[in-house]
Amino acid sequence: MKVVSADPLSQVFSALADPTRRDMVARLAIGDATVTELAEPYDVTIQAVSKHVKVLEHAGLITRRRDAQRRPVHLEADVFELMTKWIERYRSLAEDRFQRLDDLLLDMSDVPEPSEPSERNQKGTAS
Amino acid sequence: MKVVSADPLSQVFSALADPTRRDMVARLAIGDATVTELAEPYDVTIQAVSKHVKVLEHAGLITRRRDAQRRPVHLEADVFELMTKWIERYRSLAEDRFQRLDDLLLDMSDVPEPSEPSERNQKGTAS
Repeated sequence: MKVVSADPLSQVFSALADPTRRDMVARLAIGDATVTELAEPYDVTIQAVSKHVKVLEHAGLITRRRDAQRRPVHLEADVFELMTKWIERYRSLAEDRFQRLDDLLLDMSDVPEPSEPSERNQKGTAS
Repeated sequence: MKVVSADPLSQVFSALADPTRRDMVARLAIGDATVTELAEPYDVTIQAVSKHVKVLEHAGLITRRRDAQRRPVHLEADVFELMTKWIERYRSLAEDRFQRLDDLLLDMSDVPEPSEPSERNQKGTAS
């Protein structure tokens, strides 16, 4: 899978569409870690983990400090906002739509009550 | 790109990692639409749009009603929660961590103030 110059939002969604990368983000939420530390729980090569780290870095989800040999990986949690803003916008649009539908149904059920025209009409036509 | 039996969360993130599919979701948030209606603004074939619809459907983000010929596409906005729950969990973890760091730095800056030991020590050693 090769993504060529995707937009930022596509990159973030794509980076998190992998359970290993989500797991790495979950661990980095608790504390910074080196690539070697990140690789420990997984039965994969350091190279494979390095590749995942690069995808997360490219999406802006992590940065790596120039800290001599260690170069710990740091989570940039602000980038989550890109996603949550997008999601919240369309969730609330969809919710508003259902609310309007509910209100409409409620209005419709209110209509026949107040003037009782059917009774008056019956009297008019009976005499 | 072929995703074989990915977990639900990976499927949702992957489905939204494409600007055309996000645009479709944005339009479906306002109202249901048929595949033909969805295809209108794009310079692509109905087949291409159908493929995008299938990816969204597979991720649970949309359903298609069995409505004779029309079969309108309907957004299942509840699925957004899968993502927001995941994102919020790790965002708040990361935020708590920085808050604890802030609190620690504040505590450290509070320590030397109350007993002014340096002045007393100076007096003691001076006499």
